[in-house]
Amino acid sequence: MDYKIRTDLALEVRESFPEDDVEIKGVILTEDIDEENKIRISTVEIKDEAGAQAMGKPIGTYITIEAPDLDNSSEDYHKPVSDLISENLRKLTGKLNRDDVLVVGLGNREVTPDALGPQVVDNLFVTRHLIREYGEEFRQRNQLGSVSAISPGVMGQTGMESLEIIKGVIQETNPKLIIVIDALASRSVSRLNTTVQIADTGISPGSGVGNNRKALNQESLGVKVIAIGVPTVVDAATIVADTLTKYMESTGFGQEDIFKFISEVNTRQVYNMFVTPKNIDESVKKISYTISEALNSCFSGLVLS
Amino acid sequence: MDYKIRTDLALEVRESFPEDDVEIKGVILTEDIDEENKIRISTVEIKDEAGAQAMGKPIGTYITIEAPDLDNSSEDYHKPVSDLISENLRKLTGKLNRDDVLVVGLGNREVTPDALGPQVVDNLFVTRHLIREYGEEFRQRNQLGSVSAISPGVMGQTGMESLEIIKGVIQETNPKLIIVIDALASRSVSRLNTTVQIADTGISPGSGVGNNRKALNQESLGVKVIAIGVPTVVDAATIVADTLTKYMESTGFGQEDIFKFISEVNTRQVYNMFVTPKNIDESVKKISYTISEALNSCFSGLVLS
Amino acid sequence: MDYKIRTDLALEVRESFPEDDVEIKGVILTEDIDEENKIRISTVEIKDEAGAQAMGKPIGTYITIEAPDLDNSSEDYHKPVSDLISENLRKLTGKLNRDDVLVVGLGNREVTPDALGPQVVDNLFVTRHLIREYGEEFRQRNQLGSVSAISPGVMGQTGMESLEIIKGVIQETNPKLIIVIDALASRSVSRLNTTVQIADTGISPGSGVGNNRKALNQESLGVKVIAIGVPTVVDAATIVADTLTKYMESTGFGQEDIFKFISEVNTRQVYNMFVTPKNIDESVKKISYTISEALNSCFSGLVLS
Amino acid sequence: MDYKIRTDLALEVRESFPEDDVEIKGVILTEDIDEENKIRISTVEIKDEAGAQAMGKPIGTYITIEAPDLDNSSEDYHKPVSDLISENLRKLTGKLNRDDVLVVGLGNREVTPDALGPQVVDNLFVTRHLIREYGEEFRQRNQLGSVSAISPGVMGQTGMESLEIIKGVIQETNPKLIIVIDALASRSVSRLNTTVQIADTGISPGSGVGNNRKALNQESLGVKVIAIGVPTVVDAATIVADTLTKYMESTGFGQEDIFKFISEVNTRQVYNMFVTPKNIDESVKKISYTISEALNSCFSGLVLS
Repeated sequence: MDYKIRTDLALEVRESFPEDDVEIKGVILTEDIDEENKIRISTVEIKDEAGAQAMGKPIGTYITIEAPDLDNSSEDYHKPVSDLISENLRKLTGKLNRDDVLVVGLGNREVTPDALGPQVVDNLFVTRHLIREYGEEFRQRNQLGSVSAISPGVMGQTGMESLEIIKGVIQETNPKLIIVIDALASRSVSRLNTTVQIADTGISPGSGVGNNRKALNQESLGVKVIAIGVPTVVDAATIVADTLTKYMESTGFGQEDIFKFISEVNTRQVYNMFVTPKNIDESVKKISYTISEALNSCFSGLVLS
Repeated sequence: MDYKIRTDLALEVRESFPEDDVEIKGVILTEDIDEENKIRISTVEIKDEAGAQAMGKPIGTYITIEAPDLDNSSEDYHKPVSDLISENLRKLTGKLNRDDVLVVGLGNREVTPDALGPQVVDNLFVTRHLIREYGEEFRQRNQLGSVSAISPGVMGQTGMESLEIIKGVIQETNPKLIIVIDALASRSVSRLNTTVQIADTGISPGSGVGNNRKALNQESLGVKVIAIGVPTVVDAATIVADTLTKYMESTGFGQEDIFKFISEVNTRQVYNMFVTPKNIDESVKKISYTISEALNSCFSGLVLS
Repeated sequence: MDYKIRTDLALEVRESFPEDDVEIKGVILTEDIDEENKIRISTVEIKDEAGAQAMGKPIGTYITIEAPDLDNSSEDYHKPVSDLISENLRKLTGKLNRDDVLVVGLGNREVTPDALGPQVVDNLFVTRHLIREYGEEFRQRNQLGSVSAISPGVMGQTGMESLEIIKGVIQETNPKLIIVIDALASRSVSRLNTTVQIADTGISPGSGVGNNRKALNQESLGVKVIAIGVPTVVDAATIVADTLTKYMESTGFGQEDIFKFISEVNTRQVYNMFVTPKNIDESVKKISYTISEALNSCFSGLVLS
Repeated sequence: MDYKIRTDLALEVRESFPEDDVEIKGVILTEDIDEENKIRISTVEIKDEAGAQAMGKPIGTYITIEAPDLDNSSEDYHKPVSDLISENLRKLTGKLNRDDVLVVGLGNREVTPDALGPQVVDNLFVTRHLIREYGEEFRQRNQLGSVSAISPGVMGQTGMESLEIIKGVIQETNPKLIIVIDALASRSVSRLNTTVQIADTGISPGSGVGNNRKALNQESLGVKVIAIGVPTVVDAATIVADTLTKYMESTGFGQEDIFKFISEVNTRQVYNMFVTPKNIDESVKKISYTISEALNSCFSGLVLS
């Protein structure tokens, strides 16, 4: 195994640069605080190839909503978070949000931290079939977007790449916008189930719990792709490496020695492991509901009282 | 609602003709008995348009395996039934069974009697991704068929027709044979969860628990489609009509009066209802496992001891 | 099988008396209409043994909330229904509602129409362990009731009567009030998933989808038992009998002939069948959520915005 | 957090002693190899208080079956493992195995690695209710044991300790033997989902994924308790500590320094995390089936072909 810190959050990649307050060429970081609800909204814009190279992520905009109370709060709290997701989604979708949208819930519904995508789809209010049955007039009157949704499963269940399934579905149903929901890996335990990343770049290989899937983006799918992700796991190798690095640095070792040692201790076995909290079932249930509400309000046009 | 007896079993359509031992033009019925296991295998062949018209089903071969002990038997019993399914599948697939196969599990996994298809897919041994990873030599050595599988969900969950999803997946992955698994409606309560129909005609509209889906067959999909179905429900309107007919005939009414009356009593509400046994969870679990084993042995080439 | 119309709703028993506007001795029926939300609240009070005999139900109060739009309405509608359940629950619990409550979700979570009880328990906010950990002061400050909950499963899964499991749990944990949630059988298809019955009599044998369980009431459990039930199925034999009766009466037959005939046509097989709507998954999910909210607000003291 | 290596396997505690081949007073380790199936059976007997103290585990017998191929093998392999579980169970149950047995599936069915217990119970063939219905003669003729089963859920779902629920059930149903199934934590990643521990000591506090439950043993329950456990997780703090220790030892630090440092780096957050493999769903499904088969054959008397 190559030694590599794994995170799917652009914000954490940005934070990993030692020169924290120094500008990285081609990367703009802005920040907004919702004081009342203790929510921080950070936007990482990767503007050019230099920025993409430095960050190891494609050019695009990555909005991160951090709501530290999300995991243990009561249901009251999910409304402002859900509203913020909607609002930021709209920034990235532009005018597309009342158009034909396909929501894709990636991941394995049988593995709790990977079930985020399928659970969001389960709570979604799909409308495409209603519009096809009752017509355009019905759509206008109710100001509905046309929402369809699929949970394609994982390769071990289907024998197919998610990319293949979704490409096929797009060819047949012609959505104008794809929203991909996925469970992510973060570097920091404290971000698990409290952070939502919205990116207009789609999904890159190596993201999430099931980490060898192919890219799902405008290039591979031919349609604009917005990804919504929530970190639900930390890579086991990453947690070990982070702790060791902290220690070895404190005892005066150089980067090279540290990398070499970590590559040795992180065996192949640890590589296929992830770290997840004990209350992961409740956390995934709550946050998938929050995201579904945001999507319902943003795309279906369903207004809940 | 039109008054119409609903069954998805060709055998039951054939039985509904009063002239039971009379030949129907264009329809051949043959029968085989496995005495030891008390299993009856009936084959209805619809040879031409006249037969199709008479039967209200497309031209093709419908094999029905009736295993009355299947529902309450121990696990020992599932092996001979599974073997019979394999054997009869091979009759209909011809040489295709070691080729590239896509198994489609129709139905709604949240509604127990409609979960047959998804449950079969859950137990399947898919191999397509392994073959793509390890190559043709690996396939030859292990004599594997290439099996992929999908449970497309139902329109209320996805906003899309199953047909659209499957067509798209076929375009991307090019299987040579489609196996569609679906929960059916039978006319007779005693056939529920004890009968398997295998047909080389695919799925016609109006089948199963979710009965307004479009046809899935060679014409609509461009690939040979074999359907495997198990009756798990009886249409509520059918059970009412059957009982009333029995009674009214016994009191001397003519067909026309009977039809007229039944059309009145079967309200719109009954039309969206189905009848299912109380132990449906156990029954569906067992028979979906039996079918998965048949598919694994027939297509993946997986031999279980 | 004995011919017997099966309903678990006291209101339907009351309606089955031909002399609809005549007083039945020992039974008082009152009615309330919430015009705005089109909800009807009926109260059947069985005052004495004569009434109990006439009704075939134990002495007690049965409140029925009929909300015909509940099944296909949006989420806005669940709030007034949930509030009405809370309000009527409080009438029957008296001062007990902030005391130690055990909620029991009867039924089989693997059979969709029988999963109501377990799904209500899944959505419940339990507090007993928090109060035991953080103490009485914490309870007072947050005005929490002490809520515990269990889904005991069904006899085919556990080998035990629900009564045995619940009695044991009561002995160990000493709740002052039991709330039992159960899926019921109604006579009328139109009441499925739109009606909630709250009764201070507990559960009688023969109720629900799994209909041979023992009584769960103050007598058998030693604690006050309030039952909340929603009809999710109609007995298949009942639907057949109702239709036949309607027909035979119209052709001039007497009750005795009708009973005799129906006993013949309703075979043993139909006896173990139930009728349920095709969208039962969505209906049960919605109404179980509505009931959970009512219980959370009534017992845990959880106030949702 | 106290720094403490967490493992629920007596074998791993024994291995943690540096003097590996030296006798520990009061502890006997024996070993058996099934060459054909590459299975190792180790027995740790803790004979007295001295041994219990040294091991940090109660006096009793701990049998560990290690089947390294269990996780990725085909179904053929589960039979010999299942037979070994049965055989070793019988050693610990003595003559009780055809008596009245209650199987308890601990854990949270919503969290994949903690779902082992509930999934074993789901696959179990329970017989107690059949014996009560059909009588002792039926039991003798079929040589059935009386098996009942319950999955009590976890405290966050029920508000009750598992101990309270089980004690209550025992009082009402009087089983003579309790079998408790639980997901365990191991120290070694390579033992996950490939190892089964059978112990006649019951369950101690601090075991499993949900690690603050009370002891379930003869003392607390009044009946003999045998525990069957499978490690499905590694404690995140343990994996970090193990790696650090390895490193610090290699650079010449003493135990005390190591402990001190690890206590610092393992923050509170890591303490509530566990490490689990990505294919945990498949692994838990397979091994829970293997254990159910062993229990069915050992207790119900169900013989599968």
